[in-house]
Amino acid sequence: MRVTVNRKAHFNAAHRLFRPEWTAEKNEAVFGKCSNPNYHGHNYDLVVSVTGEIDPITGFVMDMKLLKDLIKTEIEDVFDHKNLNVDVPEFKDLNPTSENIVVIIWNKLRAKINKAHDLTVTLYETPRNYVSYSGT
Amino acid sequence: MRVTVNRKAHFNAAHRLFRPEWTAEKNEAVFGKCSNPNYHGHNYDLVVSVTGEIDPITGFVMDMKLLKDLIKTEIEDVFDHKNLNVDVPEFKDLNPTSENIVVIIWNKLRAKINKAHDLTVTLYETPRNYVSYSGT
Amino acid sequence: MRVTVNRKAHFNAAHRLFRPEWTAEKNEAVFGKCSNPNYHGHNYDLVVSVTGEIDPITGFVMDMKLLKDLIKTEIEDVFDHKNLNVDVPEFKDLNPTSENIVVIIWNKLRAKINKAHDLTVTLYETPRNYVSYSGT
Amino acid sequence: MRVTVNRKAHFNAAHRLFRPEWTAEKNEAVFGKCSNPNYHGHNYDLVVSVTGEIDPITGFVMDMKLLKDLIKTEIEDVFDHKNLNVDVPEFKDLNPTSENIVVIIWNKLRAKINKAHDLTVTLYETPRNYVSYSGT
Amino acid sequence: MRVTVNRKAHFNAAHRLFRPEWTAEKNEAVFGKCSNPNYHGHNYDLVVSVTGEIDPITGFVMDMKLLKDLIKTEIEDVFDHKNLNVDVPEFKDLNPTSENIVVIIWNKLRAKINKAHDLTVTLYETPRNYVSYSGT
Amino acid sequence: MRVTVNRKAHFNAAHRLFRPEWTAEKNEAVFGKCSNPNYHGHNYDLVVSVTGEIDPITGFVMDMKLLKDLIKTEIEDVFDHKNLNVDVPEFKDLNPTSENIVVIIWNKLRAKINKAHDLTVTLYETPRNYVSYSGT
Repeated sequence: MRVTVNRKAHFNAAHRLFRPEWTAEKNEAVFGKCSNPNYHGHNYDLVVSVTGEIDPITGFVMDMKLLKDLIKTEIEDVFDHKNLNVDVPEFKDLNPTSENIVVIIWNKLRAKINKAHDLTVTLYETPRNYVSYSGT
Repeated sequence: MRVTVNRKAHFNAAHRLFRPEWTAEKNEAVFGKCSNPNYHGHNYDLVVSVTGEIDPITGFVMDMKLLKDLIKTEIEDVFDHKNLNVDVPEFKDLNPTSENIVVIIWNKLRAKINKAHDLTVTLYETPRNYVSYSGT
Repeated sequence: MRVTVNRKAHFNAAHRLFRPEWTAEKNEAVFGKCSNPNYHGHNYDLVVSVTGEIDPITGFVMDMKLLKDLIKTEIEDVFDHKNLNVDVPEFKDLNPTSENIVVIIWNKLRAKINKAHDLTVTLYETPRNYVSYSGT
Repeated sequence: MRVTVNRKAHFNAAHRLFRPEWTAEKNEAVFGKCSNPNYHGHNYDLVVSVTGEIDPITGFVMDMKLLKDLIKTEIEDVFDHKNLNVDVPEFKDLNPTSENIVVIIWNKLRAKINKAHDLTVTLYETPRNYVSYSGT
Repeated sequence: MRVTVNRKAHFNAAHRLFRPEWTAEKNEAVFGKCSNPNYHGHNYDLVVSVTGEIDPITGFVMDMKLLKDLIKTEIEDVFDHKNLNVDVPEFKDLNPTSENIVVIIWNKLRAKINKAHDLTVTLYETPRNYVSYSGT
Repeated sequence: MRVTVNRKAHFNAAHRLFRPEWTAEKNEAVFGKCSNPNYHGHNYDLVVSVTGEIDPITGFVMDMKLLKDLIKTEIEDVFDHKNLNVDVPEFKDLNPTSENIVVIIWNKLRAKINKAHDLTVTLYETPRNYVSYSGT
């Protein structure tokens, strides 16, 4: 009897998409206006989904206050009001596309969540563009 | 060629989280402000998802009017504008966490839906906290 | 050059609508299922709108962090995860309809906001039912 | 390391549900007000979900600009501001239920998307009624 | 002490924009794809806003159940799952633009609502295009 | 008989809040994490509201396609995927708070819209923080 619990969070960040070894022209051709060297930004919305058995005493799969706090310390405190390219070490050599960001977030949370639980992370770059990752 | 049809519904209810055998202090420690003895409440949103083959005559997996009516009689009429702890028999001895509520709703609907169809129920306690259950 | 700044907040609460001097039958006739003696509840969403001149130094009408903190101490800490009828003194003798709640919230905030600013409060009881009040 | 990328789109269209070999009474009995011979309509929202490996150079599963353009030419240009029954050849002999529309959209997109990628299409007829199809 | 109460509703309808005395070319030039002779359609969302004094006995400006029922009989029963051009007499000689629809809806409701109350109607043709009218 | 027509649009941009003549400490004290020298960003949503008489021929207050195009050329092309502080000349010496941005947008649009029409602009920095300006 496995139930999935989901918690929404968000952070606001700047980023740009580019490959440092490419010319400005090639970056513009591949990444379009997302490669603006002066950065642009997003209100990122995040859904963290944890699947597991219901604890028969509490009725919880996982205490949502703990999950909320975990998202705050592991993700929001690190990403919110930051420049992903400049301020977040994981993106020093990794292009901060939504796909790469969602994998980084999944890895950070996976390390802190009970191994008996499955984990999926969904990241909205905009209400029209979003990605999800389950670790496989 | 299996398609999933989804129907949204909602109900407004009061509840509190607590274990009757625990002290007020322990309930407060585990369930926080959700254990307020005077209750608090939510606008619960519900998504019922039914997966099956498309009927070649009607083009329906399941008539959405029938699904809407089923949700009304089985769930909304029982839960809406109610105190889950006091008014709904299933929660007399079961803590009305989102996880336990979604399992109860799934069980009620599973009994009424064609066995050839798969069923998933998603329950939003708030726009930021939600759960889902597929029966396994 | 007056600009309106708006801040959203929310709280979850239980309530019931009734007049203590009426019979159960009359309360049921007037307030319907909202008069359930065991209470029901809502996720209330709140929008606080403050209108004033832009400060030429900061570019702010009002620091949104201060407004956020004010809403937390004056409203959320008092109303969130509470039973409005039982736990909030203002509703001991006042029916907690959306209309009465929004006036109470407006009065609480009006006392704490710069008198040179106009104030409007909008309260969503559900996404389909909401009210607003500007003090006149 | 497979990630799902999702892109939202929309189109506005008229349709009616009916079987031409049935009487008006039988169509009304089965399809209700959806069988109005003069048509009614919807703002259809569409989510196209593509699952695949992240390209290590670009950081993309699929360039979202290409996916956006593909949805425009294959779906929006064909369905938007159209009468599905009259203007879209696929529905000349197929009842344009949400279930049948989502399969048609999936087939159109499947033919144009890298075979190494999985594809799911979700179609909202209204915010309360929606369907999804993954090709199996 | 005047409070505004708002109630959301919706209806799904087909329509087209055109002037019967114009050529197809001129209609296409002015109304674009909205002039498709086979119609297209929308999920129209409606917000009805009524402003008045709070009744000191009930705590209501207006009973929201009565407002909900009034919107159903006056608007939803007449417009839902209809072709506005063909099925709704008011648009036999009036172009069913959002502007004209919102005025028609306002007139229908104004005739049924207490004259001491102010009335505003907001109509969403899509989430991105909407109109409002207050009677002046 | 004046109706308001509203059109939603959006742009994604980076910015930071700071006064160049202040120390880093003072900027941090006043603007908090919004003063991060490396910038952060937002998905800005915009609602442009134009009030005027309905044209009796077309049924339009203003052709929404023209309004959509005007927002694109005047606002989206200038602000989207830009760094407001660096790329937009109006903010070279003006702190890009929501309040200042909404006034700049209003001024740009006011210059292009029929003087017989009233204009209000609403700008969402996040779904929880938004501002509006009507020119007075």
